[in-house]
Amino acid sequence: MDFKKVFGEKIELINEQLIDSITDIENDRLREAMIHYPKAGGKRLRPIITMLVADSISRSGSAALPFGIALELVHNFTLVHDDVMDKDETRRGIQTVHSKYGVSEAILAGDALFAKAFELIGDMDLDGDRKSDLTSLLARSVILLAEGQQMDMDFETEESVSAEEYMKMIERKTAVLYSAAAQGGAISAGAPEPLQETMFEFGRVMGLGFQIWDDVLDLRADEKLLGKPVGSDIRNGKKTLIIILALEDLKDENRTRFLQLLGKSDATDSEVEEAVGILDSAGSIDRAQRIASELIAKAKVLLDDLPEGDSRQRLIELTDFMIKRDM
Amino acid sequence: MDFKKVFGEKIELINEQLIDSITDIENDRLREAMIHYPKAGGKRLRPIITMLVADSISRSGSAALPFGIALELVHNFTLVHDDVMDKDETRRGIQTVHSKYGVSEAILAGDALFAKAFELIGDMDLDGDRKSDLTSLLARSVILLAEGQQMDMDFETEESVSAEEYMKMIERKTAVLYSAAAQGGAISAGAPEPLQETMFEFGRVMGLGFQIWDDVLDLRADEKLLGKPVGSDIRNGKKTLIIILALEDLKDENRTRFLQLLGKSDATDSEVEEAVGILDSAGSIDRAQRIASELIAKAKVLLDDLPEGDSRQRLIELTDFMIKRDM
Repeated sequence: MDFKKVFGEKIELINEQLIDSITDIENDRLREAMIHYPKAGGKRLRPIITMLVADSISRSGSAALPFGIALELVHNFTLVHDDVMDKDETRRGIQTVHSKYGVSEAILAGDALFAKAFELIGDMDLDGDRKSDLTSLLARSVILLAEGQQMDMDFETEESVSAEEYMKMIERKTAVLYSAAAQGGAISAGAPEPLQETMFEFGRVMGLGFQIWDDVLDLRADEKLLGKPVGSDIRNGKKTLIIILALEDLKDENRTRFLQLLGKSDATDSEVEEAVGILDSAGSIDRAQRIASELIAKAKVLLDDLPEGDSRQRLIELTDFMIKRDM
Repeated sequence: MDFKKVFGEKIELINEQLIDSITDIENDRLREAMIHYPKAGGKRLRPIITMLVADSISRSGSAALPFGIALELVHNFTLVHDDVMDKDETRRGIQTVHSKYGVSEAILAGDALFAKAFELIGDMDLDGDRKSDLTSLLARSVILLAEGQQMDMDFETEESVSAEEYMKMIERKTAVLYSAAAQGGAISAGAPEPLQETMFEFGRVMGLGFQIWDDVLDLRADEKLLGKPVGSDIRNGKKTLIIILALEDLKDENRTRFLQLLGKSDATDSEVEEAVGILDSAGSIDRAQRIASELIAKAKVLLDDLPEGDSRQRLIELTDFMIKRDM
């Protein structure tokens, strides 16, 4: 799928409304800090999913779009705050909000992006009950995001993390906004509850597949496409599923050597290559790739519950794209 | 008015629901960081106002309470984030959240408190339209809070700030949650729009009076009651209304001396006393006190629009208390 060709028009519409949603902020510094990431672009996967689900159910993609924008605002708010927590100076080649505007401004801009998301829901052209359901969905999602982020921080100091705990963490930290995107599209479109729940589940397994594929890409992708150095998870000692699976299997000198390299922040490129080689020989990269593929296959089956048509077809392609994308 | 005696039962109920709202957070560290300020107590002015307004209109204080709790959560979230921005180590005698749990945890706990506030509104036993109105009110309030906080930070580097700009800043940073408290009570109670708007205005002028009285207290209160050193605004070089009014009037050596002392972080107690003396002689503390009294009087007139009864009477007493309290 040529992502830009298929979704170009939607992305343009989303970008317009996204930027537009921030223009009424009075304070110049606050507004500029808020708009810094949204105007840097992005694939806008979450709003696209919301629109496609709503279009598929009742051709109501445009009416559902503000909820998609709200999710994109929340996604951007978490990026701003996560970057402060991680003390990262750059994100995909641009300065992070706090390094450009200051830590206080970044905290505040994140808070305001978050509030703006709820304001957008309040302004939607839907009856009060649906808006209230969307508000609850978004609020619950952000609570889970915070739980996931805290779990991820806890992992840094924990001796060992199980595959199960890892899946629980990424379900909260990554998948939750995909579940919200799909379920929110269904709620906006007036879908019955069982279909809303199926859409939530679709987003959940798709989001899990997305994250695990992301971990694979960190080890196998091209550095230029990735926008960050290959193997950064190894240098950061991050406990991804691949590394957790490998540590369950690795023995003797392979294990000793791998543990020497894991978390070695100044590891050379050839040391990172060596670590990737050990993961490869343990078969854990292939296993993770297989798990991601299975999750994506499962997500596609759930799409059978949507009415047949172009929008569903686009959703199937988008779901496939999650494990075909190279960035 | 004996505040504790009059509102003791309400405060107990509020504390119970406030703490209860956080218990479902799974992650121990996140939950503890979230609950740190709420469990330290407080006067709970905002939820009390919400309940009294709703009780006065339709005896629906209990039904409106979750919105009051939501405001208290938002108030606590802003305290957590403000303390990170100000790098304060203590708040009213206890460790700040970030100094106890870490900066990342404090940012995250603030975010989660904020999300929780919206979840509480979604769970209220009201029709969807009212819940949607409450969501919009809360979202708009937090956007204004962020605008006010950014204005306040901008003031630090600005040469001069006008009284008008100061009023605009505290309207956003302080008064907004009082407006929301009163209007939210009216929305929950099903009041017609004009009464909702009157209640918003009541909260606004009351909140302004509250903040200006706070600035007066900083210079005239007893240190133990205040919970922080007297004159901290002088040592911090904070541009409060009192100081703005004085700078409009002060001339010659009085002005020169005052500007030497303003913002002198290591000023001795007698230097602070000297600065307060200059403000006194310029009459600006008295002027601020008069402005606060006029705002409170104006707020009380607006309460005439509520049905007569005990709840309205309590609101009148509470409004008076705003400029009688010594902490």
